[in-house]
Amino acid sequence: MRIIVVGASGTIGSEICKALEHHDLIRAGRNGLDVSVDNTSPDSIKAMYEKIGKVDAVVNAAGGANFASVSELTPELNERGIESKLKGQINLVLLGLDYVNDGGSFTLTTGVMMDDPIRMGASAAMANGGVKAFVKAAAIEMPRGIRINSVSPTIVEESFSRLEKYFVGFTPVPASKVATFYRKSVEGAQTGQNYEIYH
Amino acid sequence: MRIIVVGASGTIGSEICKALEHHDLIRAGRNGLDVSVDNTSPDSIKAMYEKIGKVDAVVNAAGGANFASVSELTPELNERGIESKLKGQINLVLLGLDYVNDGGSFTLTTGVMMDDPIRMGASAAMANGGVKAFVKAAAIEMPRGIRINSVSPTIVEESFSRLEKYFVGFTPVPASKVATFYRKSVEGAQTGQNYEIYH
Repeated sequence: MRIIVVGASGTIGSEICKALEHHDLIRAGRNGLDVSVDNTSPDSIKAMYEKIGKVDAVVNAAGGANFASVSELTPELNERGIESKLKGQINLVLLGLDYVNDGGSFTLTTGVMMDDPIRMGASAAMANGGVKAFVKAAAIEMPRGIRINSVSPTIVEESFSRLEKYFVGFTPVPASKVATFYRKSVEGAQTGQNYEIYH
Repeated sequence: MRIIVVGASGTIGSEICKALEHHDLIRAGRNGLDVSVDNTSPDSIKAMYEKIGKVDAVVNAAGGANFASVSELTPELNERGIESKLKGQINLVLLGLDYVNDGGSFTLTTGVMMDDPIRMGASAAMANGGVKAFVKAAAIEMPRGIRINSVSPTIVEESFSRLEKYFVGFTPVPASKVATFYRKSVEGAQTGQNYEIYH
């Protein structure tokens, strides 16, 4: 399969590329790689698809949100989650549909804090919950047999020492384990799923 | 209690006002009532709170999203769900926290299509899922004993004849039944809940 991985150089993205290395991979991200893209810009997403042409799968591991307590969170601070983690992922689907071959797939990324809340995580939870619900709803009317799923990881081992204060008592999982669920989404036949890897 | 109901003149909003009529109600909406507000504008939300001052509860029944199939949905059409149903509700919380008395509450509105998808409903589902996850996550760190819940109605009887083509096979519920769950949120002690009224 010809597969584009957006956010390919990140902690999880690089493991996704390893898990899918038997395919023809196009590595996308903000810092070049095979093709550069800023997921907060619909024009940049369009330019990426125009440059790469048709693919069998779009996998996204990019997207951020600001960490702030609900008392400190402002509409402005919430915008990163809206523009990047939420709209960035959804626009990859809306603008990418015509570039995905019949029977292809999209795989997006959510995260544990929507189901198992942590301090400072309300903005990220919002974005994750929006993506999860979009995936479930979009799946029932995707054209041409195209599938769509999301992967919801807990904190990964590679980031745990840096972020443990937010995830006290959580059991981190290796990014390589998370990556297997993207492969499951791409090579399997399921649609409308949100794969939870929470321990 | 002193309670502001945003979207007070809508089908569900007017029933919420009846269910809470034993309180001191302030009816807000785009078209005047006691105070006018455009929930897509943070400045308008700020002006509303400045005008009304402190309240014990904020109830929101306002917010819309465009109906479109995922093949027809564009980033531009998706913006109404983002700006109104998602950010409109979250900004009512972020900008309203300082106006809610200790032990007060916020009650937002989600909807069935995030859990039980319908055609044309992906944008609304996205917004609903974002609000639900925000509520669950924000609840754990709300200051001063302030609570937050959401109410997730199925299609209401009052709108069924107009919208039945989207909700074929769904069992509509009376808006008055939906309204009881807003009262439960306001007068009860629960937080972080999403009350599902699906049949």
